[in-house]
Amino acid sequence: MPHIALPEGVPGIRSAFAFRPETAGPMCDLAEVLLRGDNTLERGERELIAAYVSDLNQCRFCQTSHSVFAALQLEGGAELVEAVKADPEHAEISEKLRALLAIAAKVRDDGRSVGEEDIERARLAGASDVEIHDAVLIAAAFCMFNRYVDGLAAWTPDEPAAYQAMGKRVVERGYLARV
Amino acid sequence: MPHIALPEGVPGIRSAFAFRPETAGPMCDLAEVLLRGDNTLERGERELIAAYVSDLNQCRFCQTSHSVFAALQLEGGAELVEAVKADPEHAEISEKLRALLAIAAKVRDDGRSVGEEDIERARLAGASDVEIHDAVLIAAAFCMFNRYVDGLAAWTPDEPAAYQAMGKRVVERGYLARV
Repeated sequence: MPHIALPEGVPGIRSAFAFRPETAGPMCDLAEVLLRGDNTLERGERELIAAYVSDLNQCRFCQTSHSVFAALQLEGGAELVEAVKADPEHAEISEKLRALLAIAAKVRDDGRSVGEEDIERARLAGASDVEIHDAVLIAAAFCMFNRYVDGLAAWTPDEPAAYQAMGKRVVERGYLARV
Repeated sequence: MPHIALPEGVPGIRSAFAFRPETAGPMCDLAEVLLRGDNTLERGERELIAAYVSDLNQCRFCQTSHSVFAALQLEGGAELVEAVKADPEHAEISEKLRALLAIAAKVRDDGRSVGEEDIERARLAGASDVEIHDAVLIAAAFCMFNRYVDGLAAWTPDEPAAYQAMGKRVVERGYLARV
């Protein structure tokens, strides 16, 4: 049961967006530019960072949905996403993405815990300043989205089909269509 | 020293906004609607929630700046802001605001820690669903803003005058003028 009168039958963050469209607009704009805008990081890679952070935050709605969104846009599919969440240091991803995931994990814990050595590692693996910036902001933004969903106790569907349907829509139409 | 090449001499989050205007836009829009838009919670009360959460997250830039923004817009001024950060349960604020600050502290820790009893307490003190929603989202949003600033190690000025100047601008012109 959600803590406040969110519309029934609307899953997760979308019920909060429907309840308060004034704040939904900027939040969807942020998700769209961050996860789908022009970028040297692929959309699947950015969704993977979002899924990984949401998993660390144990937000079931965001973790499940962004894992699907990542799987749909990565060559390795769901198997790779699960491997990354289980152990990013040994999953079959680039060293650059591994270094960005390590930065994201630190940001999730506390922004102040990111050290010069974490940045150096990412740079040595070829990450640009914009890529480092975006990894930091994706991690920070999901610390917001996760808390928003769980702080309101928004409805989290159990059936995998619900997430596949959301994934199809996000991949095809993006986040702006969610409001 | 910031972790990436943020513009020099621009304080805190504004340097990150200048570095990446594509993401700055939605973030400023969110701050504007959440902290300054039409609301039954006063602007000073909303800034107080932002300052309180930023203080719990130990983000010096956000904590200092939003404390000033709150003080400039609350009758009790800086003294009240400091009293709330030190001990919200005994500060001279309404029971409604006290209950909303308690919810904000739980959201900051983990969205899942908000209980039905926290919501009940806020409702009994007269909080509406929108006010509860906004307290949850302000807390969640500052978990993003705080990590964004500290995760990039953005420059945090020491001089109080710098924060007073920012406060004057935010109170007069809002967050959209920050980009």
